[in-house]
Amino acid sequence: MSHEEANSRQTISDEPTRLKEIVVPMLASDSNQIVRLGDSGIAKLLLGAADQDDCAAYSISGDMALVAGSDYIRGVGFHLFETGYLTEYDLGWYLAGANLSDVAAMGAKPLGLLSVIRYPKELPDMDFQDLLRGITEGCREAGALNVGGDIGSADDIILSGSAFGIVERSSILSRKGASPGDLLVVTGQTGEAGAAMKLSRAGLLDHLTSVEQEHLLSRWRRVRPRIREGRAFATSGVVTSCIDTSDGLKAAILSLARASEVKISVESEWLPRSDAISCAARLLGCSAETLIFGDSVDFELVATVNPSGIGQLTKTFRENEMTLHLLGRVYPGEGAFYREGGRERFLPGQEWRH
Amino acid sequence: MSHEEANSRQTISDEPTRLKEIVVPMLASDSNQIVRLGDSGIAKLLLGAADQDDCAAYSISGDMALVAGSDYIRGVGFHLFETGYLTEYDLGWYLAGANLSDVAAMGAKPLGLLSVIRYPKELPDMDFQDLLRGITEGCREAGALNVGGDIGSADDIILSGSAFGIVERSSILSRKGASPGDLLVVTGQTGEAGAAMKLSRAGLLDHLTSVEQEHLLSRWRRVRPRIREGRAFATSGVVTSCIDTSDGLKAAILSLARASEVKISVESEWLPRSDAISCAARLLGCSAETLIFGDSVDFELVATVNPSGIGQLTKTFRENEMTLHLLGRVYPGEGAFYREGGRERFLPGQEWRH
Repeated sequence: MSHEEANSRQTISDEPTRLKEIVVPMLASDSNQIVRLGDSGIAKLLLGAADQDDCAAYSISGDMALVAGSDYIRGVGFHLFETGYLTEYDLGWYLAGANLSDVAAMGAKPLGLLSVIRYPKELPDMDFQDLLRGITEGCREAGALNVGGDIGSADDIILSGSAFGIVERSSILSRKGASPGDLLVVTGQTGEAGAAMKLSRAGLLDHLTSVEQEHLLSRWRRVRPRIREGRAFATSGVVTSCIDTSDGLKAAILSLARASEVKISVESEWLPRSDAISCAARLLGCSAETLIFGDSVDFELVATVNPSGIGQLTKTFRENEMTLHLLGRVYPGEGAFYREGGRERFLPGQEWRH
Repeated sequence: MSHEEANSRQTISDEPTRLKEIVVPMLASDSNQIVRLGDSGIAKLLLGAADQDDCAAYSISGDMALVAGSDYIRGVGFHLFETGYLTEYDLGWYLAGANLSDVAAMGAKPLGLLSVIRYPKELPDMDFQDLLRGITEGCREAGALNVGGDIGSADDIILSGSAFGIVERSSILSRKGASPGDLLVVTGQTGEAGAAMKLSRAGLLDHLTSVEQEHLLSRWRRVRPRIREGRAFATSGVVTSCIDTSDGLKAAILSLARASEVKISVESEWLPRSDAISCAARLLGCSAETLIFGDSVDFELVATVNPSGIGQLTKTFRENEMTLHLLGRVYPGEGAFYREGGRERFLPGQEWRH
């Protein structure tokens, strides 16, 4: 073994580096895979691992595309579960919502969820049933089915899922496609999930009013993947890129900017700031922006929109009682910025680290 | 809380009981789900969680069906990995093969594999790369693509996957459908994976010749899901039910018998017994049958065949250099039996316990 090899055997890179230097090079050559099924049709890869989108995507018969994505959720280390703020039912619902959010981000209608449920032998039937019921009802709420998976024992609770759905091939949403001049929008308040977690870790959750506490915790207890919003984006014909905020708003905007090779700027006066976020920021002694852009798994959708279509899109959202906030604009260049009082700086907040 | 409720809160049932009493009742009502996608097509659930098949299945546009299944594999507790007989590359390949075997058992062509890879922070890049390369090459060997998933950290290595594929709706294989008079077949030797594990646990693996050791360990290192064999079954028109042996041969036959509501008997003189199995049985001081029927993850396919078609099927397998062993017959009744010297007893061997 050469000196260089010996060194590289010991190298430990972070996840973004591994994605860039190991995963993408290994899997970049797959984009032309075609699977033929006699006269019954063919399937062709549209988006694979190297594309790093919310889901992988295949075109299948006719104008239909299949999308599928996987998410692991932490049982152990899930602070709100360990401290009693989340039940087994909530964890199950969260697993469903988190996975189905990836389908929503592609503009697809969900079909089903496969789940891996591994639990310690001493877990009572009642808790197992609650977990399964949470998964099943979280799926149903989003129009999907819990179609099974793998159940068995493990030392600690381990939960992971794979959600899949269908979308018109011509309407599929990806992270790539934003152009200078586009507008940036988001389907709801971000930062609330992260605020709940930070307050819990600081022992401050019980300093909120019960209404505010319930509001923040509902982000964890009843994840509502933005399926209808994603469909409205996909069928509008004017949405140019989309992603969910499962890694936080800053991470989402950075991903869109990188994939589309553009600069994105958020306007300070457009940023939604809920009462609960303002209250949490006061208790935590930080700025509201730190929470709103930070590592918070709110499962909203962030998208870029051709300005010619923003009027109609806003109308569609209002008529169907869905939320849409204007956030910022797309420019030539690169990176993600925040404009406040005529000055521009990097987006505040921390990206989520897996 | 009533006394009864208090009791049931503490009840801890095993996995088969939970499947029967919790999972199936909760999910039995889902079979009529239909998802419409404008003019681009519809999807309809064919097999859901309550069907307990190798995969869930949806009919999609035209005569195409989508199948998808999930498997978790144990990193920690994976004795052969911990003792150095399996590398990270082997684990990755195993993850791909185990998941793609579920697609094979439905008679489908694989499209892709989603994987969840969680690992301790101290895992060097080189080992991560080997793991990913194992997954990717295990997929390619079976004609599938590694399409990404979820990568991140955890205290211990956690690996799970979801494989999906396509099959003609009219050809899809399920566990249900065997009739009295059908013949039972298997695509290869079973028991070898379990034999390797048992020899390793007993510290006896190094008592084998290197050829025999390599032969048994290849069951773990290079899982070859029986994709071509599954396709030959599906397109033959004479295979009435099918399952893979991921829980062992006895478990597989029992599952077919239960799902099809028939009795299945294996003929002693037809049972394949490799040299490696005979040698392992001698070293372990047990019967070859205990190994062949026992908890061994060989990923062969077991199927029932209408006797009118067995000649043509055998010819197809021979011409395409695939293995097919006749194993037994299907009768009216229930249960799984072993016929030896004119006498019939329950199948020997242990079922796999998750």
